[in-house]
Amino acid sequence: MALEETGPSYGIIMGSADTDLPTMHHVGLALQEMGLQENVDYEERAPSVHRLTELAIEYAKTAEARGIKVIIAGAGGSAHLPGMVASETIVPVLGVAITSSPDVMNRALGSNIGMPKGKPLATFQGEAGAFNAGLFAVRMSIAAGNIALRGKYLEYEARLVEQSAERDSQLLAMGSTTYMGMRGIPRAK
Amino acid sequence: MALEETGPSYGIIMGSADTDLPTMHHVGLALQEMGLQENVDYEERAPSVHRLTELAIEYAKTAEARGIKVIIAGAGGSAHLPGMVASETIVPVLGVAITSSPDVMNRALGSNIGMPKGKPLATFQGEAGAFNAGLFAVRMSIAAGNIALRGKYLEYEARLVEQSAERDSQLLAMGSTTYMGMRGIPRAK
Amino acid sequence: MALEETGPSYGIIMGSADTDLPTMHHVGLALQEMGLQENVDYEERAPSVHRLTELAIEYAKTAEARGIKVIIAGAGGSAHLPGMVASETIVPVLGVAITSSPDVMNRALGSNIGMPKGKPLATFQGEAGAFNAGLFAVRMSIAAGNIALRGKYLEYEARLVEQSAERDSQLLAMGSTTYMGMRGIPRAK
Amino acid sequence: MALEETGPSYGIIMGSADTDLPTMHHVGLALQEMGLQENVDYEERAPSVHRLTELAIEYAKTAEARGIKVIIAGAGGSAHLPGMVASETIVPVLGVAITSSPDVMNRALGSNIGMPKGKPLATFQGEAGAFNAGLFAVRMSIAAGNIALRGKYLEYEARLVEQSAERDSQLLAMGSTTYMGMRGIPRAK
Amino acid sequence: MALEETGPSYGIIMGSADTDLPTMHHVGLALQEMGLQENVDYEERAPSVHRLTELAIEYAKTAEARGIKVIIAGAGGSAHLPGMVASETIVPVLGVAITSSPDVMNRALGSNIGMPKGKPLATFQGEAGAFNAGLFAVRMSIAAGNIALRGKYLEYEARLVEQSAERDSQLLAMGSTTYMGMRGIPRAK
Amino acid sequence: MALEETGPSYGIIMGSADTDLPTMHHVGLALQEMGLQENVDYEERAPSVHRLTELAIEYAKTAEARGIKVIIAGAGGSAHLPGMVASETIVPVLGVAITSSPDVMNRALGSNIGMPKGKPLATFQGEAGAFNAGLFAVRMSIAAGNIALRGKYLEYEARLVEQSAERDSQLLAMGSTTYMGMRGIPRAK
Amino acid sequence: MALEETGPSYGIIMGSADTDLPTMHHVGLALQEMGLQENVDYEERAPSVHRLTELAIEYAKTAEARGIKVIIAGAGGSAHLPGMVASETIVPVLGVAITSSPDVMNRALGSNIGMPKGKPLATFQGEAGAFNAGLFAVRMSIAAGNIALRGKYLEYEARLVEQSAERDSQLLAMGSTTYMGMRGIPRAK
Amino acid sequence: MALEETGPSYGIIMGSADTDLPTMHHVGLALQEMGLQENVDYEERAPSVHRLTELAIEYAKTAEARGIKVIIAGAGGSAHLPGMVASETIVPVLGVAITSSPDVMNRALGSNIGMPKGKPLATFQGEAGAFNAGLFAVRMSIAAGNIALRGKYLEYEARLVEQSAERDSQLLAMGSTTYMGMRGIPRAK
Repeated sequence: MALEETGPSYGIIMGSADTDLPTMHHVGLALQEMGLQENVDYEERAPSVHRLTELAIEYAKTAEARGIKVIIAGAGGSAHLPGMVASETIVPVLGVAITSSPDVMNRALGSNIGMPKGKPLATFQGEAGAFNAGLFAVRMSIAAGNIALRGKYLEYEARLVEQSAERDSQLLAMGSTTYMGMRGIPRAK
Repeated sequence: MALEETGPSYGIIMGSADTDLPTMHHVGLALQEMGLQENVDYEERAPSVHRLTELAIEYAKTAEARGIKVIIAGAGGSAHLPGMVASETIVPVLGVAITSSPDVMNRALGSNIGMPKGKPLATFQGEAGAFNAGLFAVRMSIAAGNIALRGKYLEYEARLVEQSAERDSQLLAMGSTTYMGMRGIPRAK
Repeated sequence: MALEETGPSYGIIMGSADTDLPTMHHVGLALQEMGLQENVDYEERAPSVHRLTELAIEYAKTAEARGIKVIIAGAGGSAHLPGMVASETIVPVLGVAITSSPDVMNRALGSNIGMPKGKPLATFQGEAGAFNAGLFAVRMSIAAGNIALRGKYLEYEARLVEQSAERDSQLLAMGSTTYMGMRGIPRAK
Repeated sequence: MALEETGPSYGIIMGSADTDLPTMHHVGLALQEMGLQENVDYEERAPSVHRLTELAIEYAKTAEARGIKVIIAGAGGSAHLPGMVASETIVPVLGVAITSSPDVMNRALGSNIGMPKGKPLATFQGEAGAFNAGLFAVRMSIAAGNIALRGKYLEYEARLVEQSAERDSQLLAMGSTTYMGMRGIPRAK
Repeated sequence: MALEETGPSYGIIMGSADTDLPTMHHVGLALQEMGLQENVDYEERAPSVHRLTELAIEYAKTAEARGIKVIIAGAGGSAHLPGMVASETIVPVLGVAITSSPDVMNRALGSNIGMPKGKPLATFQGEAGAFNAGLFAVRMSIAAGNIALRGKYLEYEARLVEQSAERDSQLLAMGSTTYMGMRGIPRAK
Repeated sequence: MALEETGPSYGIIMGSADTDLPTMHHVGLALQEMGLQENVDYEERAPSVHRLTELAIEYAKTAEARGIKVIIAGAGGSAHLPGMVASETIVPVLGVAITSSPDVMNRALGSNIGMPKGKPLATFQGEAGAFNAGLFAVRMSIAAGNIALRGKYLEYEARLVEQSAERDSQLLAMGSTTYMGMRGIPRAK
Repeated sequence: MALEETGPSYGIIMGSADTDLPTMHHVGLALQEMGLQENVDYEERAPSVHRLTELAIEYAKTAEARGIKVIIAGAGGSAHLPGMVASETIVPVLGVAITSSPDVMNRALGSNIGMPKGKPLATFQGEAGAFNAGLFAVRMSIAAGNIALRGKYLEYEARLVEQSAERDSQLLAMGSTTYMGMRGIPRAK
Repeated sequence: MALEETGPSYGIIMGSADTDLPTMHHVGLALQEMGLQENVDYEERAPSVHRLTELAIEYAKTAEARGIKVIIAGAGGSAHLPGMVASETIVPVLGVAITSSPDVMNRALGSNIGMPKGKPLATFQGEAGAFNAGLFAVRMSIAAGNIALRGKYLEYEARLVEQSAERDSQLLAMGSTTYMGMRGIPRAK
């Protein structure tokens, strides 16, 4: 994935800005964690249901020519957007099933995961899934040879491992009662 | 619904001919029960996933001008077709969630029933639902003033009531053991 | 659908006024969006469980003669009302599965979607579904030749497309962080 | 429950003879196990969807006057029959959710179990539930003072306990491998 | 069901007083609606898990001899109580699946509805179900010849029909907007 | 766990011999894999619903005194047996949710996994779970100091690892098409 | 289980300290109820996802040699930890499916209960399940001959039975209305 | 993705050869459709549960250095493999939830889709999902600049569109009755 192209490499598109941004914003947060920039390295679009088909198809059909290397598409409810985009482009598409409630989440998940044979859509789910879709897109760039991002990614992982080891040591040393008090985790009733 | 127009009034469209016809064929069976004719009063289309978006949108955008008064759209799995059609036309759309298994059925049902505010799609499910979607379309024609179809519909209902009354009388008179024997219903083990 | 008749063309009926109105009120909101008037173009009834059978059957049996062109029937829980009404009239019936919780919603949905062959009921679900049932009823009137409503409907859609395009442009131009701040969408933690 | 009255004391009613008898026949089998007779002590009716409302209501409204002491009502799918009957009579009603598949079973169960406050319906499910509904009806007669049925019921239970004790002794003595061979239960692969 | 006996006719038993009373209290409320008295006409027991088996079995085994005509048994979670009681008595048992959340409710429902052939348990669910179980028990007494309760029951139903008719008339006359305002039902957003 | 005691150390008990043995037989198969013997090291009981409470409680109450170190209790449907046994003994109880269908399996699983606080029941599910419950019981014996079983267990694991490594090598060397042919796995259509 | 060894006998390990402690803390509470001590009789570890595989495997592989007699492993979401630990040790492992919501709980439950044949994992669920896992571990120690813990366990059960009997007596004597008032349980609306 | 490297670019790994190959074989079929070769362009591994952790971790840790550009990991049941692999490598991982039954499928889907924040796993499901995972991997290679594969992919899509258009034309021209006869699709009963 050639980040030296002029346009953004990562295209984030969602069904509805106001409903989906609290989840889809996490895609960008993952990219920022790797030093990538909003509106430079990635762009964000939100057609809404009333322009969904028209805009989604236009976006999908022009993505490859515009230099987009991966599309991250999120939608809740009936969640047609990710599948529609995946059907109209050759660019890899990551679908994020957006979750306002467990019931709706499962419905959106079903709309993404059940794509028919011949129309690939890689599925993620919820806030953690949106963040992970961003990380996955970065891994794709690394697999395609982006050395700089590889360094950023390994630094990110190292930070998390260090923090994790520290907490485990504290828990082992203190026991859970003291640890929960120290970190403000509510005690059992 | 003016049946004297030259083109068909009822448009039946499905995601995939080979997969969806065993269910969607029942829409036509209901129309035939009212004396309507295949390829005259109703037409059937099946884009398949590989031409889905293009053909569905073309179909939806031209339906009103071609004289279609109601579209019955069926799909299984992720089931984007009915919602996509409903989003691109002003013609009323009946969605049929197609059912190869309970799990898939619920997924297709979810894709139909969860349409966002502003994009109406009336939902039916399975073989009985496909048949009922045909009857519903006929009721729409009757509500729009088609007297001939009204007569056919009432005759159809009268036949069913008569048959139903006869079976109930037989069961009451014979008791279930004899009745099950007479009609070849397997006895309880 | 002849709106010049003296009685209302749209009949809204629900299982229980106090429980179902927060959802079923949205049917009327959709009709008002098209310039239709409460108590003139549409009427609302709520038998409650204690008069359900009697009133629902009387309503269904007299609807066609009273000039009702479409009935929108809503119910939660066991949700017998829409199916009972659909069984006793030739007028098209739209069922709205009412939703006090995901669990109850699925139950009400099941009671609507599972109508036996021969008794058609078009199903919608929840608040968005109630609104869409209203829009669907308007589409039926348009398909039956109501030119005035056709104009209102197209104006309504145009307003929504315009608003949607504006928000998409803002998001693309600003990026999600600024957009979320501007519109008061809570930032990710 | 006065079995000396002239008409039947137990009324069995189902949505559709041909579909529901394989399950509802088990209600009668339980009654026969207690020495009760088809068409004398109990009667069976099956309105089917096309006469459902009319016949169900007539049945419910006249049941008490005809001497019916308990109604066992079965239905599958949307399963309106048991609730409709329970709403129109003061006679206790046992609903049987009929099961052609797990998915349909849950839907029918939901339609029975979700009756609103003020309209009681005691719910059973499936073939075992239909048989148990018959036993429950007999327990009601016993609670109302029928000594003869009490004797029959206790004999029935004693037979089952004896058989059960014998099988347990065989299993304990032989071990499962020999026991499975003796009774023709397929061995584990 | 002979209410002139000295002990209570209705036995209410639940898995845990503190957890189950908010639901099971509704059984008694239904009985009180018919003029029946706590601790005279009905009694309430709550063994809790730590005495469950012992007390439930003792209760079940002695119920008939103590004059109990119907047992209403409620439990949440794994919900063994109602089935255990139903297995150890010849008295009819009504099980109430208690509901702290949709997930738990379904589990408790499953534990009640899945009783094996030969061990009848009539199932109800939730607060409305607890109230209905009380009404069902009263219907049993009426079917067994209690004329006084029959009068109370018909008066209760008449009150509800009257209230229901009044609300329907108000809604029809006012329209939903005014009605919702009058009764303090929140308007749609 | 002292295997030198005179009675069996492992008690297997199930709701119904004929229904539950196809699953519960796998507990014994796991024990036999470790060289343990039917009717010597382990015993099998099946009370059935008609003697369930009585026999289950007697079994539970006497288990510790009889030298039973672990009880493996299986049941399907409402599945009261494992919880009832766990409530009446201090011996560790492993519950196996038995599975005739996905729907029933989940119900039985729910009855086991939802035990209230204070009544521990370790849950397993289905045929693989029954076998694993047997292995778990053996691990308990090993943790309690049984050196001989420890050796048997490690030999068993080594056999499986060896077989597993061989298949992986074959797949890697041959590719899936040839491997599937060799092992008779049906090719994709 | 030899508690006189120098290290802890009970190993508690969880996926993430901050997320899982509110549930997993209950394991320790059960052990404390039996007089066991944090950091002496039991230890607590929390690798978190970023060190999960490495630490979990190291923990599992060394557990037996360190004198651990039983491992209680908790995790939410995809919940790989308990199964991974169970696969890498011969020590008995109790898995606790951790529950932030019904949806997530079922997912975590599925990850625990579905272990393949040959890799036993005893499953518990939620807060009550975590507490019960602690009690189950104590029962294992008792079955292995720990007399002191047996006494503690029986005292614990006696306390609960006594409290339970007192509440049942109060409810029976007072009736539910008074009892609910006395214990501050909200009255029915 | 540089296909001229000496080792395979696509690594396919599954939980168990004999159970998972009927699904995972479809990954290779998709790659073959693009002219890629088994054992040259892609490799297949199957550790099985008994070597799962060891082999999966070794595979994951060495993948990048061996030139693997994307890993497609499939597993059923508790389905730990894909998540474990994704946690131990920086190479993008596609997880395939394998489906022996609807119930198991959902469990495996849950184990894949619920990965915690920081450990990305792109999820697919079932046979169609395995094939699509193969296509998705090819799209990744195309996005990374592989022109030859781009040509193959577009030819593949063109073939499918042509076939799809032909079937739609036949259906429209013939009507469903004739079409179903011609293609041997069973007629409705």
